[in-house]
Amino acid sequence: MSSDSFRDKLESFENQFPDRDYKIEIVCPEFTSVCPKTGQPDFGTLVFEYTPGKLCVELKSLKMYLQSFRNEGIFYENITNTILDDFVAVVQPKWALLTAKFTPRGGISSIIKVEHSA
Amino acid sequence: MSSDSFRDKLESFENQFPDRDYKIEIVCPEFTSVCPKTGQPDFGTLVFEYTPGKLCVELKSLKMYLQSFRNEGIFYENITNTILDDFVAVVQPKWALLTAKFTPRGGISSIIKVEHSA
Amino acid sequence: MSSDSFRDKLESFENQFPDRDYKIEIVCPEFTSVCPKTGQPDFGTLVFEYTPGKLCVELKSLKMYLQSFRNEGIFYENITNTILDDFVAVVQPKWALLTAKFTPRGGISSIIKVEHSA
Amino acid sequence: MSSDSFRDKLESFENQFPDRDYKIEIVCPEFTSVCPKTGQPDFGTLVFEYTPGKLCVELKSLKMYLQSFRNEGIFYENITNTILDDFVAVVQPKWALLTAKFTPRGGISSIIKVEHSA
Amino acid sequence: MSSDSFRDKLESFENQFPDRDYKIEIVCPEFTSVCPKTGQPDFGTLVFEYTPGKLCVELKSLKMYLQSFRNEGIFYENITNTILDDFVAVVQPKWALLTAKFTPRGGISSIIKVEHSA
Amino acid sequence: MSSDSFRDKLESFENQFPDRDYKIEIVCPEFTSVCPKTGQPDFGTLVFEYTPGKLCVELKSLKMYLQSFRNEGIFYENITNTILDDFVAVVQPKWALLTAKFTPRGGISSIIKVEHSA
Amino acid sequence: MSSDSFRDKLESFENQFPDRDYKIEIVCPEFTSVCPKTGQPDFGTLVFEYTPGKLCVELKSLKMYLQSFRNEGIFYENITNTILDDFVAVVQPKWALLTAKFTPRGGISSIIKVEHSA
Amino acid sequence: MSSDSFRDKLESFENQFPDRDYKIEIVCPEFTSVCPKTGQPDFGTLVFEYTPGKLCVELKSLKMYLQSFRNEGIFYENITNTILDDFVAVVQPKWALLTAKFTPRGGISSIIKVEHSA
Amino acid sequence: MSSDSFRDKLESFENQFPDRDYKIEIVCPEFTSVCPKTGQPDFGTLVFEYTPGKLCVELKSLKMYLQSFRNEGIFYENITNTILDDFVAVVQPKWALLTAKFTPRGGISSIIKVEHSA
Amino acid sequence: MSSDSFRDKLESFENQFPDRDYKIEIVCPEFTSVCPKTGQPDFGTLVFEYTPGKLCVELKSLKMYLQSFRNEGIFYENITNTILDDFVAVVQPKWALLTAKFTPRGGISSIIKVEHSA
Repeated sequence: MSSDSFRDKLESFENQFPDRDYKIEIVCPEFTSVCPKTGQPDFGTLVFEYTPGKLCVELKSLKMYLQSFRNEGIFYENITNTILDDFVAVVQPKWALLTAKFTPRGGISSIIKVEHSA
Repeated sequence: MSSDSFRDKLESFENQFPDRDYKIEIVCPEFTSVCPKTGQPDFGTLVFEYTPGKLCVELKSLKMYLQSFRNEGIFYENITNTILDDFVAVVQPKWALLTAKFTPRGGISSIIKVEHSA
Repeated sequence: MSSDSFRDKLESFENQFPDRDYKIEIVCPEFTSVCPKTGQPDFGTLVFEYTPGKLCVELKSLKMYLQSFRNEGIFYENITNTILDDFVAVVQPKWALLTAKFTPRGGISSIIKVEHSA
Repeated sequence: MSSDSFRDKLESFENQFPDRDYKIEIVCPEFTSVCPKTGQPDFGTLVFEYTPGKLCVELKSLKMYLQSFRNEGIFYENITNTILDDFVAVVQPKWALLTAKFTPRGGISSIIKVEHSA
Repeated sequence: MSSDSFRDKLESFENQFPDRDYKIEIVCPEFTSVCPKTGQPDFGTLVFEYTPGKLCVELKSLKMYLQSFRNEGIFYENITNTILDDFVAVVQPKWALLTAKFTPRGGISSIIKVEHSA
Repeated sequence: MSSDSFRDKLESFENQFPDRDYKIEIVCPEFTSVCPKTGQPDFGTLVFEYTPGKLCVELKSLKMYLQSFRNEGIFYENITNTILDDFVAVVQPKWALLTAKFTPRGGISSIIKVEHSA
Repeated sequence: MSSDSFRDKLESFENQFPDRDYKIEIVCPEFTSVCPKTGQPDFGTLVFEYTPGKLCVELKSLKMYLQSFRNEGIFYENITNTILDDFVAVVQPKWALLTAKFTPRGGISSIIKVEHSA
Repeated sequence: MSSDSFRDKLESFENQFPDRDYKIEIVCPEFTSVCPKTGQPDFGTLVFEYTPGKLCVELKSLKMYLQSFRNEGIFYENITNTILDDFVAVVQPKWALLTAKFTPRGGISSIIKVEHSA
Repeated sequence: MSSDSFRDKLESFENQFPDRDYKIEIVCPEFTSVCPKTGQPDFGTLVFEYTPGKLCVELKSLKMYLQSFRNEGIFYENITNTILDDFVAVVQPKWALLTAKFTPRGGISSIIKVEHSA
Repeated sequence: MSSDSFRDKLESFENQFPDRDYKIEIVCPEFTSVCPKTGQPDFGTLVFEYTPGKLCVELKSLKMYLQSFRNEGIFYENITNTILDDFVAVVQPKWALLTAKFTPRGGISSIIKVEHSA
């Protein structure tokens, strides 16, 4: 899965409103990685939804972190679970849901949803 | 309904995150079979939603399995229930929902939803 | 409302999966009848949703049954309630919901939803 | 707000299925009144949803009633509350919800929802 | 965050129906401010949903208030929380939800939802 | 094809701007007739486009004329050509185009376009 | 048709780029008038397209001019031709096209296009 | 390519309006064949547009003819050219255009347009 | 209109394919300026289409140039003509078309198209 | 630009219908390369339209060819012109048009169209 060097790219900043539970949704339609079986590129849209605790994710670092997967061979299920794990480890949200929608392969498309509660 | 030789085409692989309940949705818009009454082809979109247990469905085997029905005479209700039964038997999900949307016949279209809880 | 001769056109067949609660949705966008007040034709889309008991509705007979209303003078509310009553009497579903959406008249359009629980 | 002469235009007819709780939705996209502050016309879509008791609203009378507001100076909040009050007084529904969507003014558009329970 | 001079622009008027809980939704698709980090303009749509208490927000004052942010350097999370705080302080609603949808930057777009209960 | 008694229902009124070539388009989404082969109802949308000469078609008479076909057995090609012929005979336009779009039968839908130049 | 007092409301301002042929399109979705036959309100969207000569139409005056028709009894064909005539008389464009789309009546909707060349 | 036994399924009927040039469009969204290289099924939508001469295509025979390709191994370019050739041979239109849109394979989709003039 | 200091922000780079006539389209949905009459902000989408000569427009400089108008009081017609003039002066295209679509004001929206040929 | 080793990946097969001018359109929504200035990935959709001469492009080789650009630093204008040049050199079409639509950067998106005639 994602090495520590990937996770290290993710940065956070201090949430100015830690006492209020509110929701942030971030849509990333330009995700791409490589299928470990066929060597062919995969494409997808990642949607992060989370309730921040003491930290918010820094958007530019999120973009750089996701670009780490560009030439990485990794399966759909592992992409989604690993990215949520990295996100939770760095941002420490009260709640988070990651939805990953991948483009069709062989006429079949996949959507994977992984949720975290603190 | 579907003979064992159909079900045998379905393959699974090990879920790397068995302790987390997450959801996988798979959209298959190219399903076709044959109406047993008229001999005319039927067309539909199958949507699988499931929470994996120890196994995930292998997508290419799912495609081959669904192609088994191409020249098979079978009614809408039986298609949907039989395919869910085969899916549950092989993948052993914690939960699964199969939605089958068939194209219009005589100005009337049908959607069938079958659910499984472990 | 609908005479017995209308209801007699509706046919059912045996549900092969009576022990599982599943849902069937049938969309009929070509319904037409006549307004009893103005004599003008009305047009609408009927959507049946139901959970079958021992029986499923036969689609061709449903089409013929709905065509019985083509030259019948009947109000929107009566159409929707009467058709659900006929459907329930013949198909004996565990649950059913009929939604009827009528096209605009005088700039105003109507949607009527009638539900049945066994 | 709406004078009695407005309310008097609303008519009802007898609900033939008073023992069944069902839902009627009526969409009126051609509502117009006048802003009391600027004298400029306002435009909106009114959506009535209700569960009838002993009475149903007569559609043509509803159209004529809504036309009463054509040259009336009245604010959005008052339109929505007053029309629901008139509707409830005449039709006596078990439940009713009125949603009023007004077109943009100064780049800002408004939607108001008012609900009634018997 | 927003100085008092911003908040002072927000005005209210008396709710004529204070005893009924109803919902007002206001869509403002022309919000713009400036990113404090890059100095580049940000663009977004703000959607206010609220249940009025004794007061309703006056729409023209809301427009003028939102224009105060036009040349203000402020982050997405602070925009959304600050504007809801100002709205609640002036309008004193029973309940309010502010949804802010910002246009894509670097291929990534954000939606922030902040809720208030009295 | 359409008897004279059908054509007699079509009425016209005097064009007040006969010296200017302008275009009128009329969309009729509620056309229905009967298939002469199967006896099953057909449904379609008729779109008239024309440049009036000395006459314009009267809309209510057009509606009544089209309703004449409700229980008439007639093929798609004949519907479209016959209705254009009737329209041209009564309204005597400088130019006319009739587009008829029929709903799917057996998974196949048809659009027929017939044009007239004076 | 439209009295001079209507036309007098239309104002123009000087085109700053009279030597270049360019095109202006103005969309007015809130037009309403009254049917002279039934007394019922009509609703439509007017789209002006024109190439300015020495003058451009002033938008607020266009809005006030169109509001003059609010309680005027006038047919679709006359609305479209009369408004184009007034527009041409006041703005004196090199070319103009007015498209008027009216909402459905009796299930039938109309679009009228009138063009002017200098 | 298509054997004569395929072409023999296509039937025509006499055009009742041979002196008028008009256009017929037929949309067939349920075409399927097999890729001769991979053995995998292909799916597409075929759109026929033609101006009939002395004959029109019979729709049910067109459906049966297209079903002949269901288990036939044939490339996209050959499907489109062969079907147009068969159509022209049997129906002898004044003009014909066949557009074939195939669903994505490997993230790439294809549309092929073949035209015939008499 | 736009001072020289605005135009100076626009930069170009050398077209590597000057012998081939090709077309570049650039969509800028985040344009904003100020109405000189009311002081209120205007919002619009600018679409540039052009055939490059020896130069192409540099996209980041175009963004900075358009931001110059953020707090500038200027009418729709002048915005569109002035920006095209600046674009032509700096980029010297073989052909260019600028389309500016402004959001509704008082229920009325405007689109202005200005074209240049070398 | 593209080295010969890129172009060498493109393959063709013999057109079976060289005497008929027909059109092939190929949509490739998963193109990605790298901006040579910022090092950031770019994303776009490439649409090829061409009339084949003696050859057709082989789709799998086209996919592999386009993947060559995945980690290549290259500007939009050069991508589009270079890919068309490679396509023309290998496939030798009678006519070809390449349309490349790139996703927004800094709120601005670009579309480039390059055409070739034999």
